[in-house]
Parts: sequence; C-alpha cells; structure tokens
Amino acid sequence: MNKWVYAFGGGDRDGNASMRELLGGKGANLAEMASLDLPVPSGFTITTDVCSYFYKHKKSYPSDLKQQVADALTSLEQKMGMRFGDVNDPLLVSVRSGAPVSMPGMMDTVLNLGLNDDTIHGLIKKSGDARFAWDSYRRFIQMYGDVVMGVHGSDFEAILLAFKQKNDIENDTEITSEAWQNIVTAYKKLVKDQTGKDFPNDPQEQLWGAIDAVFASWMTPRAVTYRNINDISADLGTAVNIQAMVFGNMGADCGTGVAFTRDPATGENVFYGEYLINAQGEDVVAGIRTPQPISDMSRDLPKAYKELLDVRQTLEQHFRDVQDIEFTIQQNKLYMLQTRAAKRTAAAALKVAVALVEEGMITKEEALLRLQAQQLDQLLHPTLDPKANTTVIGKGLEASPGAACGEIVFTADEAEEQAALGKSVILCRIETSPEDIHGMHAAKGILTARGGMTSHAAVVARGMGKPCVSGAGSIIIDLKKKRMRVGDFALKEGDMITIDGSTGKVYFGRVPLVEPELSDDFETVMGWADAERRLKVRANAETPKDARMALQFGAEGIGLCRTEHMFFDPSRIRRVREMILAKDHETRMDALAHLLPEQRQDFSEIFDIMNGLPVTIRLLDPPLHEFLPHSSADIQEFADETGMEFDHIRNRVQDLHEFNPMLGHRGCRLGITFPEIYEMQIRAIFEAAIDILNTGTKVFPEIMIPLAGTAQEIKILKQRLEQVAEDVFSEKQQSIDYLIGTMIELPRAALCADELAAEVSFFSFGTNDLTQTALGLSRDDSSHFMPSYLEQGVFERDPFATLDVEGVGQLIEIAIQKGRSSNKNIKLGVCGEHGGDPKSIQFFEKVGLEYVSCSPFRVPIARLAAAQASIRARQDVKLKTRKVA
Amino acid sequence: MNKWVYAFGGGDRDGNASMRELLGGKGANLAEMASLDLPVPSGFTITTDVCSYFYKHKKSYPSDLKQQVADALTSLEQKMGMRFGDVNDPLLVSVRSGAPVSMPGMMDTVLNLGLNDDTIHGLIKKSGDARFAWDSYRRFIQMYGDVVMGVHGSDFEAILLAFKQKNDIENDTEITSEAWQNIVTAYKKLVKDQTGKDFPNDPQEQLWGAIDAVFASWMTPRAVTYRNINDISADLGTAVNIQAMVFGNMGADCGTGVAFTRDPATGENVFYGEYLINAQGEDVVAGIRTPQPISDMSRDLPKAYKELLDVRQTLEQHFRDVQDIEFTIQQNKLYMLQTRAAKRTAAAALKVAVALVEEGMITKEEALLRLQAQQLDQLLHPTLDPKANTTVIGKGLEASPGAACGEIVFTADEAEEQAALGKSVILCRIETSPEDIHGMHAAKGILTARGGMTSHAAVVARGMGKPCVSGAGSIIIDLKKKRMRVGDFALKEGDMITIDGSTGKVYFGRVPLVEPELSDDFETVMGWADAERRLKVRANAETPKDARMALQFGAEGIGLCRTEHMFFDPSRIRRVREMILAKDHETRMDALAHLLPEQRQDFSEIFDIMNGLPVTIRLLDPPLHEFLPHSSADIQEFADETGMEFDHIRNRVQDLHEFNPMLGHRGCRLGITFPEIYEMQIRAIFEAAIDILNTGTKVFPEIMIPLAGTAQEIKILKQRLEQVAEDVFSEKQQSIDYLIGTMIELPRAALCADELAAEVSFFSFGTNDLTQTALGLSRDDSSHFMPSYLEQGVFERDPFATLDVEGVGQLIEIAIQKGRSSNKNIKLGVCGEHGGDPKSIQFFEKVGLEYVSCSPFRVPIARLAAAQASIRARQDVKLKTRKVA
Repeated sequence: MNKWVYAFGGGDRDGNASMRELLGGKGANLAEMASLDLPVPSGFTITTDVCSYFYKHKKSYPSDLKQQVADALTSLEQKMGMRFGDVNDPLLVSVRSGAPVSMPGMMDTVLNLGLNDDTIHGLIKKSGDARFAWDSYRRFIQMYGDVVMGVHGSDFEAILLAFKQKNDIENDTEITSEAWQNIVTAYKKLVKDQTGKDFPNDPQEQLWGAIDAVFASWMTPRAVTYRNINDISADLGTAVNIQAMVFGNMGADCGTGVAFTRDPATGENVFYGEYLINAQGEDVVAGIRTPQPISDMSRDLPKAYKELLDVRQTLEQHFRDVQDIEFTIQQNKLYMLQTRAAKRTAAAALKVAVALVEEGMITKEEALLRLQAQQLDQLLHPTLDPKANTTVIGKGLEASPGAACGEIVFTADEAEEQAALGKSVILCRIETSPEDIHGMHAAKGILTARGGMTSHAAVVARGMGKPCVSGAGSIIIDLKKKRMRVGDFALKEGDMITIDGSTGKVYFGRVPLVEPELSDDFETVMGWADAERRLKVRANAETPKDARMALQFGAEGIGLCRTEHMFFDPSRIRRVREMILAKDHETRMDALAHLLPEQRQDFSEIFDIMNGLPVTIRLLDPPLHEFLPHSSADIQEFADETGMEFDHIRNRVQDLHEFNPMLGHRGCRLGITFPEIYEMQIRAIFEAAIDILNTGTKVFPEIMIPLAGTAQEIKILKQRLEQVAEDVFSEKQQSIDYLIGTMIELPRAALCADELAAEVSFFSFGTNDLTQTALGLSRDDSSHFMPSYLEQGVFERDPFATLDVEGVGQLIEIAIQKGRSSNKNIKLGVCGEHGGDPKSIQFFEKVGLEYVSCSPFRVPIARLAAAQASIRARQDVKLKTRKVA
Repeated sequence: MNKWVYAFGGGDRDGNASMRELLGGKGANLAEMASLDLPVPSGFTITTDVCSYFYKHKKSYPSDLKQQVADALTSLEQKMGMRFGDVNDPLLVSVRSGAPVSMPGMMDTVLNLGLNDDTIHGLIKKSGDARFAWDSYRRFIQMYGDVVMGVHGSDFEAILLAFKQKNDIENDTEITSEAWQNIVTAYKKLVKDQTGKDFPNDPQEQLWGAIDAVFASWMTPRAVTYRNINDISADLGTAVNIQAMVFGNMGADCGTGVAFTRDPATGENVFYGEYLINAQGEDVVAGIRTPQPISDMSRDLPKAYKELLDVRQTLEQHFRDVQDIEFTIQQNKLYMLQTRAAKRTAAAALKVAVALVEEGMITKEEALLRLQAQQLDQLLHPTLDPKANTTVIGKGLEASPGAACGEIVFTADEAEEQAALGKSVILCRIETSPEDIHGMHAAKGILTARGGMTSHAAVVARGMGKPCVSGAGSIIIDLKKKRMRVGDFALKEGDMITIDGSTGKVYFGRVPLVEPELSDDFETVMGWADAERRLKVRANAETPKDARMALQFGAEGIGLCRTEHMFFDPSRIRRVREMILAKDHETRMDALAHLLPEQRQDFSEIFDIMNGLPVTIRLLDPPLHEFLPHSSADIQEFADETGMEFDHIRNRVQDLHEFNPMLGHRGCRLGITFPEIYEMQIRAIFEAAIDILNTGTKVFPEIMIPLAGTAQEIKILKQRLEQVAEDVFSEKQQSIDYLIGTMIELPRAALCADELAAEVSFFSFGTNDLTQTALGLSRDDSSHFMPSYLEQGVFERDPFATLDVEGVGQLIEIAIQKGRSSNKNIKLGVCGEHGGDPKSIQFFEKVGLEYVSCSPFRVPIARLAAAQASIRARQDVKLKTRKVA
C-alpha cells in the first residue's frame, strides 16, 4: 500500500526536512519543526506523488487516498480534542499548497475551512466572540469562493466596500457581528449567482474542493509560466498541507507575522521582519493595515517575542541557514506556520555564506553548494534600484545581463553619432547584424524585436558585457518613421527607456541604476570555489578589453577567440569586402596583405595580455555574405567608395546568398575553398606569437578549425597550416609550440570523433551549433515556437540556454568516448554558450571535460558552478562507495 | 618483402582475373588470358599498391620496386629471347595504365618503348623494313612526348601535316623511310624546344618516365572529374602494364582491331567489331583510316579470323559474359592485348542477362548482380538519339533523369501559357519555389542555375518524373530582359534548347529524342529481382498520376505522400494563404473548412488507386512562409484578389521570415503550434478512408509525423490525432485500422529513438533532412562547395545522392537498435531520396529496414538494387559461415 498522507505534530513524526520532494518544502519543514518540538499546529500533508498520479490519471486520485485522508483527519481530531464539522466545538483547518520549490502563481491558502452555517455556532460558543467568528466565516467564504470556486476576490471586496460606504464605516473593526453575518449571506448569494452553485455547507465537500483546487492550480497558466521562466520541472508536482487552525485575530493578545533570521537584502546578522496585532495571515500581505517592525513585538507581545527569538536561534542552528518564517500568536501563545531557507540578494548570499562558515555552522563545501551561481550576475552588472518606481512596458529574453537606460535610437550609425555627443542610447533593432557592431559598441544597451538567446544581438552583447533584451515580440519598430510601439506605448527616437537584460524587462523612462561592487565576500567565496573545482574556466574573448576583463574575473585562458569579430571591425570591413569581392587571385591576395598586419596586431595584443595562458583561436567561421553590404544603398555606397561596379557587387552578393546560412558555406568549408584566407590568419597568428615571445612574454596558441565534419577536412587544413607555420618559423629563424584542434559542432563530427581525434590535439565542443544541428533547430528562428514548446513540456528548458543533456549530451559523450579511443590524451573543452550555464557545467564536469569557456562576465559564475559540480561529483562517488561497501 | 610486380605469359601465372583490385582490370585479364593459353604477348604488371604508396609518400616508390621491375624485365627478355636496349635485336614494350575500373582520362598507352637512335637499327635489321622501323620510332616519340613530356599531340601532327603539304603527299603510306627519319629529327627538336629537355635516349629512363606518367595521370583533373562523376573512389589507384610489343603495322599480313563478343547496343548474339590492316592500335581510334567490319577479316586474314572466333568463344565461356577485346595480328599470328566485360546499353544488358541465363552460362543471381541498377533509368525516360549531332553548351547536375527539348521560358506563368498553346517549353529559373509548380507541370523539362540534387526543382521534378538539370552554374539568367547566357551562348525566350537530366548536359537547339520502351527482357529481369529481394519497395507519390505510375512500376505501397504538394496546388493556394493569414481562429477555421473536402478528395483518390496497399501520409511539413506570396507585386495581387490589406499580408510574411527555414518552424512544430491544420488533415484522411472502405476497397493509412525530435512532441500530436480519429469514427459509426509513425530526420530523434519508438508503430528515415542536420549541410547551398569537396576527397560521393554511411548511417543504426529496444515490432522504412539509390539500398538491406520508398520512376531501380543487396547479403552470410566452419 502506498502511503499518500504524512502526519506531523502531536507526537507524529512521519516526515522530515529531507523529504521535500515528497512533501513539498512547506510540508517537509512543518514536519521538521514539529519534530524539533517547536510549536507547530498539528496537521498532515498529502504528497506530491498524489499530484503526479492526478495528472497521469485524468485528474483522478488513488483509490485509497480518501481513506488515508479520513484516517489522518480522525487522528488530527483526536490530537486537537475537537471534531471536524462538530457543531459544538468544530475543528477548523487551513489548506495550503506546497511544492518542492517555492512556486508563486499557485493556489496559496484557504483558512478557516470547516466553518458552515452550523459549525459557526460552535466557534462562537468556544471563542465567546461572535464578531470574530462571523468575520472568520466571511473570510473563509471569500478565500474559498475565490480560489476554489473561481469568484473574483474583488467582487467580494465590492460587497464589503458598498456596505461600508452605505453605513459610513471606515475600518473593518467597526463592523459589528450582525453586520458580518449579513455580509456572509451576501457573499453566499454572490457565489450562487456567479457559479450557479450553493456555497458548500458540508465540511468534507469543502475539504476536497480545496484539495482539488490545490492540485489543479499546479497547471494554471501562471504557474506554468513561472516554472518555465525559472527552469522548474513540471514533474515535481505539489503537495497539500492540511493543518489545524490557530487564530491571530482573536483579540489584542493575538497577532501574525513574517520574519527573516537575518537581513535578506544585506546578509547582516539582524532579526528582520514585521507583524500585525489581531490579524490573520492574509492581512499582512494584503496591505490594508501597515505592519509593524518585528522589534516592536518585544513591547506588544513580550512573551511570544521571547519565544520567537528562541525559535529564530533554534531554526538557524538546526537548518544552518538563514530562515524565512511565518508565525501566528493566539492568545499570547506562539505557533510556527512555516519556515524555509530565505531568498536573498546575491550580496546577502555571499555575506551569509562567509558568516556561516566563520561561525562554524557550515563547511565551505556546504556554503558553495548553497549559492546560486547564476545569481552572481547581479554583482557584475548595474542593476535596477529596487526602491525605484517602474513602469514595465514589455518583456523579451534575458539575452545579456545588466540594466541600462538611454535614449532610443534605431540605427547603428545614429547610435554612434549620439554616443559621440555624450548621450546614452539604447539601440533598438528588429534584429542586429554584423553591420550593427559599431552601433552596439556605442550603445549602453541593445533591444531587439526578434532573435533568441543565441541570436547575433545576444551573443555579441554578452561578448561585450553589454545589457541586451532580445526577441521582445511585442515591439513593433517602424524604421522609416523612427518610432516603435511597445504594447500600448508609442515611443519615438530620443525617448528614454530602460532595459534589464537580467530579467528581459523593458521599462518606460529612466529607472535609477545601482552600480556593481565586488565585495570581500565575493573574493573569499571565489577563493573557496577555485580550491574546489576541477574544471578550468576560460573566457570567450577577442578584444584586448574583453581579454583584460576575462583575466580580472579569473579566466585561465581564452577558450574561444572569434577572428571574425576582428573582421567586422568598421576600420577593416572595407578590406574584408575587397577580399571577398576580388575578381582574381591577385586582388584577393592584395586585400589579404592589407589585413595581415592588422590581424597580427590583434593577436599580439591578446597574447601580450594573456601572458602565457592558452589562447584558442578559431579560424574564420561565418559565411562570407555576412560581411557584404546587402541593401542597394549600402552596395552603392561601397561601390562609390571603392570604384567597383555596382553590378559586380550585387551579383556577388546574390551569388553568395544562402537559403540556410547556418548549414552553408562557412567554417572550415571556407578554409578549404578559399585557402588564402586561413593562410593569412595562420601567418598572422605565428608572426604575432614569435614577436611577442621575443619581448619575453610566453605564448601558447591553440589553433581551432571550425565546423569540421570529416577527418579529411582536418587533414587538408592541417597540412596547409603546418606548412605556413614552417614558413614563418624559417623566415623568423625561430619556432614556438602550438596545438591544432577542432570544434565539435556537427553530429557527424561527434559520431566520427575517433577519426577526427587522430588528427588533432584538442576538441572544443561548440554546443550552440551542435544544439542547432542535433535538434534541427535554428537558434534565430526558434523564438517563433519555443515559448509554446516550453509551455507544452516538449523541452524542460530552452536548449540554447541549458544543454539538452539527453540529446546533445549524448553526442558529447559519444565524441569523448570515441575521441579518447584514438587519442587518449586529447584535450576537451567547451566554448558554446552553455559553457557559462551552471546546469550545463554540472554535465561537463560529469563527462570529464578539461575546461569550459564563456563570456568574461560569466567567468565567476562558471568558477562557482564548476566548484559545485566538483563537490557534487565527489559526493556522488562517496555515496556510491558507501553503497558498494 | 612485398610483391609489387606480377608477371604473365611465357609460363608465368602470377596473377588472374580475380586480382583486379591489385592488378587493375587490364592486368588481371591479361594474366587470366595468358593462363588460358591464349596468345598474349608476355609482360608484367606493377600493382595498384604501388600507386597508393606513391601518393602516400610524396610521389616516391617503395625501395625494392626498382629491383623487382629489373628482375621482371630480365625474365621478359629471357622469354622473348631479346634484350631491352639491345642495338641488334631490341625488346620493345608497351606501357599502359590499368585501374580496377575502367578510367578514361588517364594516360592510356605508350607503344614501341625502348626505341632510340641506336636500337632503331636493330629493329630495321630484324624486321628488314626501315620504313616500318622509322614510322614506329616517330610514333613512339609522338606518344611519349605527348603523354609523358607534355608536348601537345597536335604540335607533332602539325609537323607531319606541313611535311605532307610541302611534298604534296596525301597518305602516310606514301611517306618514305628517309622522310620518316627526318620527321623523327623534327619531332625530337620539337620536344627539346618545348620542354628544354632532350628526348630520352636511355630505354631505362624511357621506361621509368612512362611509369611515372601513368601514376601521375591518376590525379589529373580529368581523371578526378571522371571519378567524381562516376562514383569511383580515388583510393583504388591504377596499375601499370608493361608488355612485349607485337606489331600490326609490319605489312599486309598484319593488322589490329577491337571487337565485342555480342552487339553492345542491342545485346544480340552476333560478333561485332572492326579492324585495320597494317596498322597499330591507335590508328583504329584516331580515325585517320576507316576501319572495316570484323566479318571482312574472314577474307583478308582468314587464319587469324578463325583463331579470333575461337578466342571469342573461349573468352565468353570462360568469363561467362560479353567481352570487349583488343587484338593485333603480326604476320598472320593473332595476339590478344585486352579483354574486359563489355559496356552495354541498358537494353543490351537486359537482353544479354536473359540470354546468358537461358544459355545456362550464368545463374539468375549472377545475372542480377551484373546489372547496373542505376542504368535502368535509360529505359524509363526519353533519351537523346545517340546518332544525333549535338552542341553541348552547359552542364549542371543530373537532377531528374530523361531528356526533353523545348522553347525557353523564364516564368511559370509563361510556361503555362505557352504550353496551353501546344508548345513544348523548358522552364529556366535561377531556382524554383513552390509558386512555380504549375509552370513545372506545364513544362517538358526544368533547368535551374542554382540548387543541388535535392533542391526544390530536383525533388519536385523527380516526383513528376520530369527531366531536370539543376545547379547549372554557368547559366546567367536576366529575368527582366528575358534572356540568358550559357557559357558563350546568348539565348532568349523562345529559343530552342534540349536538356538531358540523366547526364546534366544542356544542348543548343533541338536534339532528336528516342522514346522509351519496356521490353520483355525488362519484365523477366524484374521478375527475378522480385523473387530475390527482401526489402519492399514503395513510392513517394501524392497525385493520382504518380500513384498509378508507381503501381505500374511495381511499387508495393506509398511510403511518402507529401500533403504540402496538395497545398501548393494552384486551385487551393488561395485558401491555404487565407488560412495562414487569418487574423483570428474563426477565419482560420473557415479557410480550413474549405480545404477539408479537397484534401479528403485527394486521399480518396489515392486510397482508391492503391487498393489496400499501405499509404504513408506525412502531415504538413514545410514552413508556412513557403506558401505565401513574397514580392510586392504578388502580395498586391493577392490583396486585390482577397480584399486583405497589403500591410497585413506583408507584415505576416515578414513575421514568418526565417533565417534558416530548414531548421525553423516546420514539421510537427507547426502541428503543435497550429493544431487546427493537422486536425483538418487527419479528419480528411479518416473521412476519405471510411468513404473508400464503404465502396468495397481496402484502405490502410499510415499517418506520419514529420521532424519530431522528442517523444513529447509525438505524445502531444498522437493524443490529438487519436481524438480526431475517435470523432470521425463515431460520426461515421465505423472505424478502420491505421498506424501512427514518425519520421526520423533529426540526430536527436535517432539518439532518443527508444523514447520515440515507445509512442509509435513505425519509423521512416527522412535521410535528406537527416543528412542536412547530421552533416550541418544545407542541400540547397552545398553546390557552392560540394564540387571542391568531392575533388579534394572530403566526401567520396555527394551525401545527398548516396547515403553517408559512416556518419548518417551510424545514426540510422543507433535509431534502429534503440527503437527496437523499446518496441521490438517497430516497422522501419526510408523515404528520403536515398531510398532510390542502389548504393544506399545496399546499406538499408544490411541494417534490416523493411522497405525503401522512392520516386515512381526509381521503383524499378530500387527493385533491382534491393535484389542485388539481398543476394550479396546471403553471399556474405555464406562466406562467414564457411569461415566459421
């Protein structure tokens, strides 16, 4: 027989804090607190397994659930010495949802359940307070009517308001017992009118209605959306907690409140919270009365306050973490209704972590595991001032973290011009292209109407460490008229907006920003992380600025230096275009000869900055048409500039047009068909390396071939590459060590990795492209249907943000196994966007990569995530060892 | 020690016919003939292993080769009783290339090698014919100068011509011994002038020069191109045959000729060939003198002719196949210089196969294995009249077989209009799109400047069984001026051209065509094939015409019915567009309601024709933007037609634009996000099926979900599909059996096939898309670099024509193994273009698919290829069994 129901309190210890998956966070912690003999009203929890069963069986329950609930209720009646539905002394209960992870958007709470036209009299008798009893009843009808029966809360409020206006009453406290009774009648009529059903009088019917509502609320659109946004699996399910009522609203010796055992904003070790005298839980949240700071309790409810301070101590010591608690005081007696690990800002998280370790409460390992790596982003970028009033006007993808505000501009040129005048601008585009790079540089932030997490705008912005919101579908840009609509807002060039790339939100006007500051706590925690992690962390960087930033954030090398970003540089693009448009070999070689010293300079600077750390340089990757002008105007401009014929340029552009550029003439396919381009790049690398070596700085270039699918491609390019190396070495009378490697970004490359590995010294997994090809999914086009796919559970998470372990991960494992079979010393790393994603890093640790590489700004996140992955891996080994022993 | 040199003749029997890989076809068969005691001049063969060594070791030879060649030469001298370079009685040799497969484009032959200013006197003395000797010497210089030293043959011819003009001589026979001697001097001077080198006098130097030249010719552009076109691996290499000279030019009792043991054009059992009296081999080919029919030999050289008839008999009996032979008669003695299986037309191949089986010479299995499945195409389409004079003006890909001629038109509308006037037209487009379908229907053939073997034009044309040449890169189309350039030819609308989709060639003007005819031999052979094969063969068809043709060609069902082809129908496209452009659900449902009866009719007709055979229907696959108008003019036209706003249409078109449509919002992604489209299609299928069933015709629909990558997608769609089925069944009070399956066309689908298989009854491998995604290669864009990739050996064959077994094949094997692990009865088939490719079919047989599906016109090819694959598989099993035993 399955156990579906777990009791807590009054001696029952069915559950504990470790059973959060089964009992939900709330239920598990209630059980734990009860076991600690803290004052928890008794109750029981219906498990998350019931929720899973519910959705797998057309919203029905296991056959034995009813009996188990009935037994638990009987036991609760015995503990409380009251009976559910008893007209003389009715047991009332609260019904609350409680998922394994905190989940706003679900049915929250129904209080006072069990009241009806009969039991109300028992409550009056026992409490001796008819006004309290009728108030409780009307509260019950309102909550139940709202969350279970679907009558909107404001309709109840309207009745109450009308009554107060009619009788010229300001505060609820002035409403008499009889008046509340009339309101109860009016509420019940409202329910009947709106739903066609009577408000249920039978407590059992009430109870099961509430249980149904909790489980049903797991799949409401709000809950689904929240889970998608927060990467929570729909499989977890929710539990239902049924608990004997205690009342904070029975008089001046009663109250209710919420508190944090330390300050959740700063992490300081001060008791922090607020409470209300003579109130029920929802009053604190509803904001009708202003709560008082928790310290005032020492004056109003001294006994309970002293108990509460003890509880604070006990819970922090027991859970060894900052707690977020809810409590109620009934006639001077303290009851604990909830405890959970407190949400906190990144800064607070670091301070608490360091403090708890110093206090000897937790180990460094534990401290590291508790931190959310992703959250570190907050510390590295400007954030919105949390105290500011804001008007959200749109939402896109959190494409590149940080907040920025500025005037709207619609073109890259305009961005550059306005920025040159000292203005802050936000570049707003339908989508960006390589031609916008200078405008992206000039802007404070980038906002696009289209494109996913790995669209051009997103990738480039992350590389630049610049805030970006991409794929904000509600934005309609009219380029000609220089204006845009965002939902209901009509905006024009020069209007001020604020974007938050960490949340994807777009705000009207200027929102004050808080600049980031790296605390000592940050350095301390990073130090612990570095000591724990096995994975090395490199950065994706191609500019001196990025390389320096990468070093500052602790990168141990460059894992991806994208040479095309150098090609896109506005000062070079002309030569690049001339090279592409060349009508003969000589003209092409001439253009390349002009590019050579510039590329050499690029590499010199980076080698110099990286000072002997490995630098992985990827040879030219994107299709050549990306570099060319496309509109007639741009073609004409370039023709005028260079004296080339318009028709020649246009024909060549048409010629190079591709239906599916992602699967087109790019990567090593370019290198094989236009050998002179790669040869120039390789020459630049080696010339720069030797020059830098001669200044006394160590150099260690790793040359990486993109988009290889066959060993033959690598053989062809390797031979040419080695030839150029030999040429340069003999010209310079000096040689250096270097490695040749390849990206693994095509399924075929992974499947034939044994053949590829025999030719190279390293693999770097290009998980962006590998995701695109393995899933047949264009990163730039997926925004059309990805929201629907996440909602319908096709993907648990956006596979461009978090690695699809089941599919793409399988290819990576195949590649590693095959690669090592033919080259046991092959170095393995990853340089796709997933290299900076904590969940993905966990996988990369598991499969034994040597390093991850990510945007400079994500390096600290990766360092922490890598440490967490190392610790978890070690724990897994211990666990397994123990099982074996 | 490696054996690099194999001797034949004069008692040596180092080689035989089975050693074709090592000795090349020519060498192996010379050895075999010598072993049969046929009159073969003695000689030896340098193996293809030397060729491989040569290219793997920077064009150098194994260290022991020189000695082995020297030993073989010494042995040859002993057999012949002559010495190489002997001034009194010089041994002369021929040097010929000989690859395992016939290879035009390589160095062919150097005769008379060993002659120099000294040995010429020995030859004069031994032959007693100074004129013959000097003529032989000048022939040697000309051949050697041309193929070894790179002096163009025409420069030699020019000297000879000038001499003849100066001396008023018409025939070579009038040239005197002295004159030939002078010409020899002039030839040597030409060589010196052009190459800066003396013509080599040393026979050893001559010999190694010729050997070098044979091996070097393996990689000439012509040879490489030939191999690419004919799917021959560059790894095979060539052998070199060195053979004692015999002379057909020593007088009237000498001669030389070529013959076929049966007529290679018709297959009839008649001796067929031609010969020349007093001539050397190259004279027959050169066409200076007109050869005589072989039967005349009975009069001119009766003794040799009788011997030759015996040889004909012996060789056919021995090789049990029609032979193509070369021979020389020296002073009435017959010498055999070559025998090989004769090339033949498809018709001849069938006739010979049937005849040899009837004559008891070979088994049906052998007959089937010898046929080239690909060649059957010739029998199913019009072909160019081989006797016609033609002017080739361009070359593209052999996208869809058959030949067609007609007037040039540049738009689909024009094609339709001209065809309606009774004209034959060839539709010439840069590329085709779904909007051109009506024009493709109306045209006799299609020619495109861009696009690969699986571009829209190619796929649709093959489906229609219409000739198509795609990706003819040398064509430049000027749509506005209605003209095009093909190489040097300027053509305009209305000009006549001919295309041959079986060869990819484009011809100027009208070339007469020969209509196809299916012989009894064809039926006989197909009957044998059907008895042998295990794989079922289905057809890809969506129109009644195609379905009927498929049945006629022996298809056992439809493996792929592409419903979008029905959507593209000009009479429906308006409703389809309305459905896509609908602003609300109601308008969309309205448009779908109009499409429903038409789709139902489509399916009714096909079910009716297929009469109970399985019909696999793929739900809508292409991205929606493919159905929309794109140019402003087309948008305006549609706006006028429907009254929709221009801006709305344009915005929606822009909205649906995709960067990489192949990886975009298509396949089941459409079905999941626009459920009503699939629901309409499914309803149409079931309504049609039940209607047809009620007419007494059996129906067996298999519904196929395209582009699934996850089990969840299938679960979602399956649930909806089953719901619609239930609805229709209950409306009609009748139900039918059906299957639900999925395409496997994404790497992820293959890797997670166990999860997918648990949800479906069949997999159909969509190898086009699987190739695109596994290789990261857009079929429509690959023509930019595929030629270079084939040339450089990255791919042995175009992976869109022949399955990339190593990469894509691995995914198929993984999918089969995983699919069966969770669903042991899962049906497996393939419906990509590879389903009609003989080499790929061999793989599909090996991995155990149940059926292949291909264009109707390829069904006979697939039937034969499947039979061959079955036989080979059985032979492999026998071989293994024998090895084990």
